Amino acid sequence: MKQQTSFFTDNVIADADRPWNIPPAVPGMPIAEVDTPALILDLDALEFNMNKVHERLHAAGLRVRPHGKAHKSADIARLQIAFGAIGICCQKISEAEAFVAGGVADVLVTNQLVGAIKTRRAAQLARRCALSVCVDHRVQIDQLAEATRDATSRIGVLVEVDIGHGRCGVSSVNAVVELAKLITRHAPQLSFAGLHAFRGSAQHLRTYEEREAAVDQAVAMLRDVVEALNREGLECPTITGGGTGTYALEAASGLYTEVQPGSYVLMDADYAENIQGENDDVLRHALFVMCSVISAQSHHAVLDGGLKAFAMDRGVPKMVDCDSTVRSVSDEHAVIEPGESRQLPQIGEKVRLIPGHCDPTVNLHDWIVAFRGAHVSHVWPVTARGAMF
Amino acid sequence: MKQQTSFFTDNVIADADRPWNIPPAVPGMPIAEVDTPALILDLDALEFNMNKVHERLHAAGLRVRPHGKAHKSADIARLQIAFGAIGICCQKISEAEAFVAGGVADVLVTNQLVGAIKTRRAAQLARRCALSVCVDHRVQIDQLAEATRDATSRIGVLVEVDIGHGRCGVSSVNAVVELAKLITRHAPQLSFAGLHAFRGSAQHLRTYEEREAAVDQAVAMLRDVVEALNREGLECPTITGGGTGTYALEAASGLYTEVQPGSYVLMDADYAENIQGENDDVLRHALFVMCSVISAQSHHAVLDGGLKAFAMDRGVPKMVDCDSTVRSVSDEHAVIEPGESRQLPQIGEKVRLIPGHCDPTVNLHDWIVAFRGAHVSHVWPVTARGAMF
Repeated sequence: MKQQTSFFTDNVIADADRPWNIPPAVPGMPIAEVDTPALILDLDALEFNMNKVHERLHAAGLRVRPHGKAHKSADIARLQIAFGAIGICCQKISEAEAFVAGGVADVLVTNQLVGAIKTRRAAQLARRCALSVCVDHRVQIDQLAEATRDATSRIGVLVEVDIGHGRCGVSSVNAVVELAKLITRHAPQLSFAGLHAFRGSAQHLRTYEEREAAVDQAVAMLRDVVEALNREGLECPTITGGGTGTYALEAASGLYTEVQPGSYVLMDADYAENIQGENDDVLRHALFVMCSVISAQSHHAVLDGGLKAFAMDRGVPKMVDCDSTVRSVSDEHAVIEPGESRQLPQIGEKVRLIPGHCDPTVNLHDWIVAFRGAHVSHVWPVTARGAMF
Repeated sequence: MKQQTSFFTDNVIADADRPWNIPPAVPGMPIAEVDTPALILDLDALEFNMNKVHERLHAAGLRVRPHGKAHKSADIARLQIAFGAIGICCQKISEAEAFVAGGVADVLVTNQLVGAIKTRRAAQLARRCALSVCVDHRVQIDQLAEATRDATSRIGVLVEVDIGHGRCGVSSVNAVVELAKLITRHAPQLSFAGLHAFRGSAQHLRTYEEREAAVDQAVAMLRDVVEALNREGLECPTITGGGTGTYALEAASGLYTEVQPGSYVLMDADYAENIQGENDDVLRHALFVMCSVISAQSHHAVLDGGLKAFAMDRGVPKMVDCDSTVRSVSDEHAVIEPGESRQLPQIGEKVRLIPGHCDPTVNLHDWIVAFRGAHVSHVWPVTARGAMF
């Protein structure tokens, strides 16, 4: 395992096992010379976004635990922690391992770990960091208890509450209390660490009022849960959830103790569609995919990035350096057509696109080219890219 | 660079730079014990598909050059070559490097290389394999000529003809002739190798008749191009294109010399929707994503694979081991709901899904778990995963 020798990952020339996997840039290079398609990251915008969101949450007395699933980068995670984050969230145990190897000391897996392989990995990892995970069924608690029985490690266990997401999580107060009591039976290996209450769909409601109503509803339900736990003598040290679309609402809830925004640090075209409730909430686009024009025809041009360079689940990417628009996207190509100017970029010209959805876009790339102004500052590996176990 | 010591890649324990990246299986393991979400590959179905398509094309006197973009696996490429393929197609120069490192000796990049970095990589790679690439503009020819001027390597150059795809390629007979003549001026470094004529959309037309009409139209246009080239004294050694949806039509065309099917070897839910023209054309699903149920609620269950485990550009994946269906997919989860049986799989149960689109699905994974019957045969790295430059 590579040792961390400086704050940021040292310049990596190539992946030892995959010598064809040459990074698209070196530090100091003008952005215009970066090879394409490349994920490029504006550090000024990234820092602006961290300051904006962390300050707001800290002012309200909440902890910030950014979601590492958005960027999968140990370098960005360390930067978030340097900007006051308490640790990182992950979705996968392999992702957590990658962040811990990269120097993160406190990780919450906001997901259910099922099966002996994953729970054993968790028990091992918990020797090297503060680890917590979520459950919504006694089977998961039994498996965690089994995996940690002979391990010297401790795992914090949060009960996931379904606050309207309709995915994981229990939806009755009694079920939460029952699971919490079950967790405490496996002390000291397992401890009841609190509630995980996240509603992904609430993040993407288009108006502030809709998002406010969603969070209000969740908070009302969570208050009932906390009261019921307290009646059983169970403390609820952490109530974690929320994200880029709703963090100001969780900050104002008086209930949430921790928020886990992911996209805020990078931003994407979908989040930019949210009608901001207050002007000072506006976050900056930090992440772009830079592509080159590889073919130019009379009425369209073709870029060298497609489905394998930007995720398409929240629509086509938006072009930012010209008024052309993306007409269609195939595996390795995007076809663009001219806008009002009737101008198309020429063969060899490089253009930036804002991906529709940052999380699965970053996961397609091996490298993040971080820049300030017109020059490359760092080339970071996407540490946990593809870590899906 | 790893040396190839046996026909298939030796069992790889983990990626040296990414120790958290443990493969989900080891050879000999029952399929049911493979960790999830995992890409699993039925070798019997794979071989059935190779035999079916290669025999049909060989019987008609055509060469088979499968598209490596579909599987990105040097192991599958070597198997295709062992089953009679002449070499491999790629979309990217880095992908070509990965296949050549994996033992493939003949590669066609079915794409335009633009910029000094990529054309220099091509000139270097051409010292180690038979390399050909496509062009549709003189700029690309000039750049290839520049990159190969001082190199001792030779590159075959095909002119891409737009046969209705509306992406790359020139669409007039005169433009083809002009580019072909320009290529010959840079002999011996560059040679005019023929025509690349692929229409992606024709592959996915739902009826045989529609696909037949599309290929007939292309063949008529290509005949005009070949005649015009011959009038200028230019031979056209290769006419390459076609794919899984149309290979039997190119085989019958009397014009195409080479077909480049990609998905045929794996198959996906989208290609399975094609109404087959003849019964003996039916190909078998070889590729699945295996997922585990990590959460079970009263009316739905949640799988441990989402957008980052299967591509969604051609619809949600199809479940094969039960009558449940995929209701929604988020980054790391798929929510499934019961079918007529009203039964849902239990927590910990493993289920197989057929991805909508195989190419971008494979690109999300680091490992292919190849199996026969109920046991794992091989665990292969996805050699060129993420090779996008």
